[in-house]
Amino acid sequence: MDPLTLETAVLSQDKRALVILDQTRLPGEIQYLTLTREEEIWEAIRSLRVRGAPAIGVAAAYGLYLAAIQEETEDTVAFLDALRRHRDYLNSARPTAVNLSWALNRMTAAAQAGRDSLTVPQIKERLLEEAESIRQEDIAISRAIGALGFSLLRPGDGILTHCNAGTLATAKYGTALAPIYTALEKGWQDLRIYCDETRPLLQGARLTAFELQAAGADTTLICDNMASITMQRGKINLVFVGCDRVAANGDTANKIGTSGVAILARHYGIPFYVCAPSSTIDMDTPSGEEIVIEERPPQEVTELWYAHRMAPAGVKVENPAFDVTPHTLITGIITERGIAYPPFDRAFARLGFPGKEAACV
Amino acid sequence: MDPLTLETAVLSQDKRALVILDQTRLPGEIQYLTLTREEEIWEAIRSLRVRGAPAIGVAAAYGLYLAAIQEETEDTVAFLDALRRHRDYLNSARPTAVNLSWALNRMTAAAQAGRDSLTVPQIKERLLEEAESIRQEDIAISRAIGALGFSLLRPGDGILTHCNAGTLATAKYGTALAPIYTALEKGWQDLRIYCDETRPLLQGARLTAFELQAAGADTTLICDNMASITMQRGKINLVFVGCDRVAANGDTANKIGTSGVAILARHYGIPFYVCAPSSTIDMDTPSGEEIVIEERPPQEVTELWYAHRMAPAGVKVENPAFDVTPHTLITGIITERGIAYPPFDRAFARLGFPGKEAACV
Repeated sequence: MDPLTLETAVLSQDKRALVILDQTRLPGEIQYLTLTREEEIWEAIRSLRVRGAPAIGVAAAYGLYLAAIQEETEDTVAFLDALRRHRDYLNSARPTAVNLSWALNRMTAAAQAGRDSLTVPQIKERLLEEAESIRQEDIAISRAIGALGFSLLRPGDGILTHCNAGTLATAKYGTALAPIYTALEKGWQDLRIYCDETRPLLQGARLTAFELQAAGADTTLICDNMASITMQRGKINLVFVGCDRVAANGDTANKIGTSGVAILARHYGIPFYVCAPSSTIDMDTPSGEEIVIEERPPQEVTELWYAHRMAPAGVKVENPAFDVTPHTLITGIITERGIAYPPFDRAFARLGFPGKEAACV
Repeated sequence: MDPLTLETAVLSQDKRALVILDQTRLPGEIQYLTLTREEEIWEAIRSLRVRGAPAIGVAAAYGLYLAAIQEETEDTVAFLDALRRHRDYLNSARPTAVNLSWALNRMTAAAQAGRDSLTVPQIKERLLEEAESIRQEDIAISRAIGALGFSLLRPGDGILTHCNAGTLATAKYGTALAPIYTALEKGWQDLRIYCDETRPLLQGARLTAFELQAAGADTTLICDNMASITMQRGKINLVFVGCDRVAANGDTANKIGTSGVAILARHYGIPFYVCAPSSTIDMDTPSGEEIVIEERPPQEVTELWYAHRMAPAGVKVENPAFDVTPHTLITGIITERGIAYPPFDRAFARLGFPGKEAACV
């Protein structure tokens, strides 16, 4: 039984439209958008209607395919020129999302490879296959992480997660939530999942609590500052978080607050696992010290979401979007190739890193 | 120079009205209310226009005085009967606020003591003196805590605080913020104060950031989950928090999230101080295990403040209002009698606890 009825980004039945769940409407409204024009798809990525690095990659790949099939030329050179223009346009939707350019470049490379041997209709077929591959590979990665993470669970466990590293951030299943979906598929009904609301953008409240509840998981929302008492009360057996980038020594950049959760987990003797697709493991970054943390606008803290402003005008605000959890606080890093345990540099080498993919953000 | 231009709850010049700063309008609007009728004062306490245990006690004492002077009888027995009715009425504004009943009972006891020797006008004078004493004693306690806390500071220090234990919670100066006001009075301009916003009720953002900014302190607001990175970056030299109740062994109940801040401070090697008026030190409670934590409505997490709901309907929520910080994580407990260092039970005995006052909430 598949607990996941939500689809983040898929092609329509007739393969002529991209269907996305509009995440800006969550959790109040489940609205799927059927998008055919590349301007619509650009806007959906830009406005975070689809978000999460892997999910953006999938949506962009389908978007480029849809732009391609709307080209009427039969001339291969002209078609490939047009394709590159569409790629550059879609790529401008979110300039810092590495997965976006990675997926789009993979699409144009696939088309380019057929330049001398394939007709334009055949190249269009090739683009469809490539987009489907990007989605299927992402699902396979989530499935592998889910199976490995599931092996760490016992019936009745309480699991704490932070931010959203779920099905809504990927093609399906997510990373940190994949073990939970695996457990639900196997009929486990008694896992208890605690979601940090994850200020300031509330991804835990809006997205994680929503998708877990939709899948029938026993879901409890807490404010970030309640993680300590929840652990103190013995309700948490294990922490699963996602990641944005893992350095070669295992230091992990993830949503702001993750390092605090790791320190609490260490204090209370609770295992803390990072769920990390290969693409996030960046062997070119020696440690977390080299990771630059994005500083975001103060208004996210002082005004966003609120009916009226909740902090005095002009007060200084710091709003770092991510933090780095030192490898010393991490029990294990779950990749689709296996679980890395400390020392992480050696574990990564054993798992075959440096690998093939670029780091994603 | 007094950096504090805000007044939490004072008697008007003509001593015929209570003047409070309406805290429900903060931080957007500085509006003082002039209240004369006891129904208005009851409502102001009930609706949290004045909040914070010591501040509630002061407002209620003045409120009972104002109700008393509106009684026209010259008969002492009838007057004292009426006074008790006013006391019971005001006491019903917030049934769990121990400081409320403590202050009101202190007022009626003062009146009762003059029953046989004083006229009604003299008893009214006595009630005014008692209310002023309650306020002045609270200010003296804050001043003493401020001086002791100040002795721990060095110029340029970064201080983290959680929730609001400032002038808005007391007659003046507060507890955790009192050392900062002492420093400002001495002309120190280079302390850097970081305020946790303190979800779900945002006392840090709405009140602490507001009052510190109004006093000219270098104030920075952060989300609760940013405390870890702020400490990691070396910006915090010391933590000051208030408390709701301190057990005999030093375990401290305070606003939800405090125990997490203490664990982070320990991890980063940062001193963590609790600022505790004698009235909060409860020698009848052996340890934090005996302290019951209030569980508050889920709507504070899912809907309050927000323009639209930010979590899925029906999701389970835990919303504990306080947590207990184990004494092992506390560097020192600053009371107006001196600073207690571990082992706290012996330090409390040396400072003369058990003392005279009941614990407040």
